[in-house]
Amino acid sequence: MTDPTHKSPTDRTKIRRLPELANHDQEMLHTIIDEAYVCHVAFRAGDDVHCIPTAHWRVGDSIYIHGANGSRMVKALLSGASASVAITHLDGLVLAKTAFNHGMNYRSAVIYGCFDLIENDDDKLAAFDYFMEKISKGRKDEVRRGNSKELGATSLLKLSLEEAAVKVSNAVPSDSEKDIDRQVWTGVLPLAVVRKSPISADNNAIAAPEYVQHWAD
Amino acid sequence: MTDPTHKSPTDRTKIRRLPELANHDQEMLHTIIDEAYVCHVAFRAGDDVHCIPTAHWRVGDSIYIHGANGSRMVKALLSGASASVAITHLDGLVLAKTAFNHGMNYRSAVIYGCFDLIENDDDKLAAFDYFMEKISKGRKDEVRRGNSKELGATSLLKLSLEEAAVKVSNAVPSDSEKDIDRQVWTGVLPLAVVRKSPISADNNAIAAPEYVQHWAD
Repeated sequence: MTDPTHKSPTDRTKIRRLPELANHDQEMLHTIIDEAYVCHVAFRAGDDVHCIPTAHWRVGDSIYIHGANGSRMVKALLSGASASVAITHLDGLVLAKTAFNHGMNYRSAVIYGCFDLIENDDDKLAAFDYFMEKISKGRKDEVRRGNSKELGATSLLKLSLEEAAVKVSNAVPSDSEKDIDRQVWTGVLPLAVVRKSPISADNNAIAAPEYVQHWAD
Repeated sequence: MTDPTHKSPTDRTKIRRLPELANHDQEMLHTIIDEAYVCHVAFRAGDDVHCIPTAHWRVGDSIYIHGANGSRMVKALLSGASASVAITHLDGLVLAKTAFNHGMNYRSAVIYGCFDLIENDDDKLAAFDYFMEKISKGRKDEVRRGNSKELGATSLLKLSLEEAAVKVSNAVPSDSEKDIDRQVWTGVLPLAVVRKSPISADNNAIAAPEYVQHWAD
């Protein structure tokens, strides 16, 4: 039997603020991750805490990130300390009659755990193929894959999705009775990430493949 | 004399990876902050590191965030430990002829420092007015402002922009000579955040003001 929900909340992933917005659907977690190209990674390095944006992709129940060998982030993430990765989609601003009741609609995932280093070149190539498939389906068979020098210069890191907190707000404005007669427009101002028309490189001489032609559809 | 650049890089804000992308223009820092509604805040709480999305706004050379009194984030940020705040705009995917040379165009800011608690109710009201102005210009004069109970339940936190790292990539794909004849389309697949048509609340009986009518323009 498969379990449609992710694991029970831990002390780190239990949602205390507006717990009714907690979402335990694994498909929602995967969609939040897959719709985004960039996550934010929080980690400790010495006495400092860093919050660094980086590209991510998902394969099954893990996410991957990559970085230059020996970078501060890579070194810190491989030090054994637990990290935190957040991915957030802002879907709209919720405008109520009172300042206090304004809010946002969003879908967010925060994942906790220790990253593992993937060292084997075949495993790295396979994982990077998934990354290319996410960027453009089919393109992995067109580009030159990483050679041993390029793979050797890049650290590939993998994090399990086992410990994740997902929070989804899809609300309409709500005010208490005593403010309801106030003459203020209420509603939602939506925001969305969209794909714009592709821009060919100046020196590109190749016809746009299907995935480029339909990028902005 | 005003200084058009932000301060010299510290050990935390010096950009080591692709240092040519470092940007020291204060206006770029402000634009990155102002264009976004949500930042990610990294902080320590005990042995854990957290990365939490939250709304932010800027007033002059500081950013503000707010949260419920006593929340884990608020408590940790007021513990005196330094935090890190990241704001990232993803502008496009850069598709080269080789997997290794793929990249992203983005504008990001990472700010370091200790948050201060703003306690005075007048100062809080003034700061929240700026937040409302960011959401919709003019709306602060229509809504009911926070009363003493609402203000008392909300912690308002302020962080100086003095220690900030800004990185901007606006690149075209680039491959080495030996890959240049490969038959692969190259270019940029742009992404952008757009405003969609406003959605009035079901019980809204007020005509849409200018800022709602023109939201999606």
